[in-house]
Amino acid sequence: MSDRKEFRDLAEPAAARDAIASLDLTPDPESVPLDEARGRVLAERVDAETDVPGFDRASMDGYAVRARDTFGADEANPVTLDLIGAVHAGVEPDVTVEPGTCAEVSTGAVMPDGADAVVMVERTDTVEETGATRIAFRTAVAPGDHVMVAGADIAAGARALGPGTRLTPREIGLLSALGRDEVPVRGHPTVGIVSTGDELVRPGEELNPDRGEIYDVNSTTIAAGVAEAGGEPVLYPHAGDDYAEMERILREAADECDLVLSSGSTSASAVDVIYRVIEERGELLLHGVAVKPGKPMLIGRLDRGDGGESAYVGLPGYPVSALTIFRTFVTPAIREAAGLPEPRTATVEGRMAAGERYAEGRLRYMPVGLLDIGTGADGSDSDRPLVYPVDKGSGATTSLVEADGVVAVDPDMEYLDAGESVSVQLFSPDVRPPTLLGVGEDDPALNRLLDRLERPRYLPVGSREGLRRLRDGVPDVAVVAGPTDREVDSVDLGGWSREWGLVVPDGNPDGVGGLAELVDRDLRIVNRSSDSGLRRSLDASLDELAAERDVSRRALTDGIDGYDRTVRAFESPVRTVVRGDADVGLGLRETAERLGCGFVPLGDQTVTVRAAPDRADRDAVAALDTALDGIDAITSGLAGYSM
Amino acid sequence: MSDRKEFRDLAEPAAARDAIASLDLTPDPESVPLDEARGRVLAERVDAETDVPGFDRASMDGYAVRARDTFGADEANPVTLDLIGAVHAGVEPDVTVEPGTCAEVSTGAVMPDGADAVVMVERTDTVEETGATRIAFRTAVAPGDHVMVAGADIAAGARALGPGTRLTPREIGLLSALGRDEVPVRGHPTVGIVSTGDELVRPGEELNPDRGEIYDVNSTTIAAGVAEAGGEPVLYPHAGDDYAEMERILREAADECDLVLSSGSTSASAVDVIYRVIEERGELLLHGVAVKPGKPMLIGRLDRGDGGESAYVGLPGYPVSALTIFRTFVTPAIREAAGLPEPRTATVEGRMAAGERYAEGRLRYMPVGLLDIGTGADGSDSDRPLVYPVDKGSGATTSLVEADGVVAVDPDMEYLDAGESVSVQLFSPDVRPPTLLGVGEDDPALNRLLDRLERPRYLPVGSREGLRRLRDGVPDVAVVAGPTDREVDSVDLGGWSREWGLVVPDGNPDGVGGLAELVDRDLRIVNRSSDSGLRRSLDASLDELAAERDVSRRALTDGIDGYDRTVRAFESPVRTVVRGDADVGLGLRETAERLGCGFVPLGDQTVTVRAAPDRADRDAVAALDTALDGIDAITSGLAGYSM
Repeated sequence: MSDRKEFRDLAEPAAARDAIASLDLTPDPESVPLDEARGRVLAERVDAETDVPGFDRASMDGYAVRARDTFGADEANPVTLDLIGAVHAGVEPDVTVEPGTCAEVSTGAVMPDGADAVVMVERTDTVEETGATRIAFRTAVAPGDHVMVAGADIAAGARALGPGTRLTPREIGLLSALGRDEVPVRGHPTVGIVSTGDELVRPGEELNPDRGEIYDVNSTTIAAGVAEAGGEPVLYPHAGDDYAEMERILREAADECDLVLSSGSTSASAVDVIYRVIEERGELLLHGVAVKPGKPMLIGRLDRGDGGESAYVGLPGYPVSALTIFRTFVTPAIREAAGLPEPRTATVEGRMAAGERYAEGRLRYMPVGLLDIGTGADGSDSDRPLVYPVDKGSGATTSLVEADGVVAVDPDMEYLDAGESVSVQLFSPDVRPPTLLGVGEDDPALNRLLDRLERPRYLPVGSREGLRRLRDGVPDVAVVAGPTDREVDSVDLGGWSREWGLVVPDGNPDGVGGLAELVDRDLRIVNRSSDSGLRRSLDASLDELAAERDVSRRALTDGIDGYDRTVRAFESPVRTVVRGDADVGLGLRETAERLGCGFVPLGDQTVTVRAAPDRADRDAVAALDTALDGIDAITSGLAGYSM
Repeated sequence: MSDRKEFRDLAEPAAARDAIASLDLTPDPESVPLDEARGRVLAERVDAETDVPGFDRASMDGYAVRARDTFGADEANPVTLDLIGAVHAGVEPDVTVEPGTCAEVSTGAVMPDGADAVVMVERTDTVEETGATRIAFRTAVAPGDHVMVAGADIAAGARALGPGTRLTPREIGLLSALGRDEVPVRGHPTVGIVSTGDELVRPGEELNPDRGEIYDVNSTTIAAGVAEAGGEPVLYPHAGDDYAEMERILREAADECDLVLSSGSTSASAVDVIYRVIEERGELLLHGVAVKPGKPMLIGRLDRGDGGESAYVGLPGYPVSALTIFRTFVTPAIREAAGLPEPRTATVEGRMAAGERYAEGRLRYMPVGLLDIGTGADGSDSDRPLVYPVDKGSGATTSLVEADGVVAVDPDMEYLDAGESVSVQLFSPDVRPPTLLGVGEDDPALNRLLDRLERPRYLPVGSREGLRRLRDGVPDVAVVAGPTDREVDSVDLGGWSREWGLVVPDGNPDGVGGLAELVDRDLRIVNRSSDSGLRRSLDASLDELAAERDVSRRALTDGIDGYDRTVRAFESPVRTVVRGDADVGLGLRETAERLGCGFVPLGDQTVTVRAAPDRADRDAVAALDTALDGIDAITSGLAGYSM
């Protein structure tokens, strides 16, 4: 590891921003068809090249007249004129309105020569006379009445739209009126994304966990972020551990893109390749920034083969860190180059749900979750969402969806009080805070119940941890299974019952009959962690067995091979059994049957949904309560489940 | 016109909403590649199919150990273990950590068999001994330290994302982590747009103004609106006045689309075709709604050839009316079908800039402009933007960009007070209110000056009307050219001078020498309207000539052929001369030279930019002031211009 670069002199975050701002990512303008122009940004001013309308246009159904001929007309004394013909929209007039005559016109028709006003049809009567039709006018009009003269909408030469205008439907409409079917727009900056981890595999490809392969999360996340910010992402092929190929790809990306991004490689060799390319082709502007996460950020300039210049930014490796640094340092540069301002929705003001202590000594972007709690629902008069830190370790990809954004915490900030206002930079302007936050046991019926709610967030932290969090005041509800050892003030919204027991391979080849055999026979088991309700029920049964045998539970569990081998979710032990990595797993009948395993029942446990008392009246909690009323439609389809 | 349908019993707006809500536009779900999934909406729950990570993973660079071997180690008493090999990310381990040994691991590596924890490299020292390397550990670790166990991030079977989730970069990241490269998403409802006006021509095609042709604004505007709301717009070819073809297209659209839209045709025959198709193929649900604009709205149901059902909505014909009715009645249905909620930015709260009186008696969607005036800049403590009505007659396409949205005014509302809070439904969630509102003279130097500002709005209403509006308090600045007859309290920000005169055909074939010849010779002229500064200067010169001759100005102007023939913009008279429709036009040397005309100078007039005193300190006005300091760079490039 001796050749790993060290980051001793960390740059200030402002210097990193300046370095990125100094890079020119602006692409050439381009011309796009009007029907693909929505959301793009005008590259130059558009002036009208012709008058709109291009002719004097009737703006009512009625009769074109010489206004002077109608002077003096009213209901009592109509003026009567000869009807000499009709002009419809889209047809060239074949009549001239001489004094004493009129012509029928429809809205949009060209005004016939001679006429200078329109009388609407409602103020006229048709008078049939022998061999001729005459029209009686019950009102007078002035010249120009109900006529839109040529250029009255937009005159040739007028400034129609300015450079930098974002094209929404209405601007598209104005451009249509001008007859434009091609529009000059700012180009999308091209952003190359180079994947550098040896262990990374593209989604959809086969994964070999024995080699430690994982799916490449950052490339796709950042590519989506680039597109959202108005850039054109280009994913370069993954070179694996072929460093010569990786160097070739990096050089190609520099030649083809306005900006090249990679995210922190765990491989020293890959980092060396990046350094070499930057040193040979350009300039390293900055290396290491005093910000958490993001310390290893690299910023450089790369000369392009075509004489232009490309930029390089190296992002941290963990997904939440990479997205945070991308969003706070890189997105503004891409938006600037694309001509798109940061959307108003990119930041929301919230208030801390609980106090939070820090001692970082450098700028920290704290990942946070939001809960849109509604006006005054917690007794406060604020409608700002609640903000709570999400700290699963930034290596977790689930943090990506459990956090909604980040709060910038200054280096000298030591404490954030509960209720304190904070500004949350959302991970995307399209992120919407959840309306309901639940925590607790994981359960297949619950998974389906959540499908019936709008934007719920559920953190499967286990029954025990769920109750603890409910007590501490952030979530709306906790879902609790099996026996509990803590009492938390809550409102019971309802629940269901599920059958639990021992999951064995199909056909129960070891002939497992019950709990005692785990202790007495040589069976490898796989357990759930002590936060889970399933484990609490197992331990309660073991307590009974221990009492029968007059020994401690510990004495029993010491004899169970794998009692301490715990996994996280209700399906995990069953899958371990399916893989042949255990003889017995703790699980549900539902899962055993669904995954084709045998099942030795040990009991039923209740699963209850409990609301925090001060949240029970919230709309989202009421919606959950209503959904629970229909839980039988879910439980009736799940083996071992009942109301 | 006798066959034109009348709208006698107007439905309530709520009934129109209900009718549209009763139509099922929901398309079938579809599967899209992950890299095209951003912005789409998950059609079903996505559960994890495998553990993430799929193996026990080192989460630090360091050494994999049996935790038990490090117990008791500290800085004073390090524990030393044999180094037996190394495991890097992306490589299958080829070592087993037996008691007393350790293996180097990099972040992301598979934990070798036997090891249950990682000690970070910073807490170790390498001890080289003859023939072997040993590692000294200056700290103890517990089992699991710096190891992410298989499934710790997401366990197989866990609920990852719920149905209805909008896919932003972070959800794309989570789906990548699960290895998904295809995602089940809600379909885009297909919305067919049928163009029905005989006089309409698609942008980019040749226009024949003599036939009254105009570009089709509504089809492209609504198509962009459909895409913005999450629909897939399909523009059907324009059938012109071939009604059999139009009927065929309507039937085809009904078969192919979830929703068919057309906008109010001015042609009775076209309306008849629409009625016939709805009556034969489905059901007319509603005809005429008590809302302004939108009275002629049609809502129907169409049976599809495939046994399904399509919906039909007929929108009003004027562009602002069509967009208003589309946005308020149709967009919600498309969004619902696409699974996309209305964006938070679709509505803004504003306050009326001035009082406004009504007597409509039915719901009115009043088009309004917004001015983002900033916190307290007008002395109030509100940061809500100013709202002012835009009423150019809804036939004007420029209203599309002069208004930002609509305010729903209830039938029983008689008066809106200045300062009153109103909710503005923006024409698009991407509409951003302008930062500066200017009114007044149109001028080519001004057009370029505006290019240097961010999101200005400028209404070329003429100098006189500009001053009136400045006095009435809505705009920030007025641009005034030539002599004025009203004094308005304002702050002069600067200006420039422009040469004006008579524009004649190239080479001055009539040998026009000066103003007097307009009166004395038989020349057809084209004038500007009396609101323009050019006209004020012309009239001032005519006053001088009248004084010389001791006659009234009227006596002179009665002798000028075309004195009352006025056009709207500075280029319009020049273009009239170029077309050969006038011998002389009132205009600027700049325009005459640019469009290849001759020019007879009559004088110079100043153009000044004047700010409302209570707005002079606003940032946007300051930015304009700064831009004016550099006006010489603009005027030096324009013939007849000076500072």
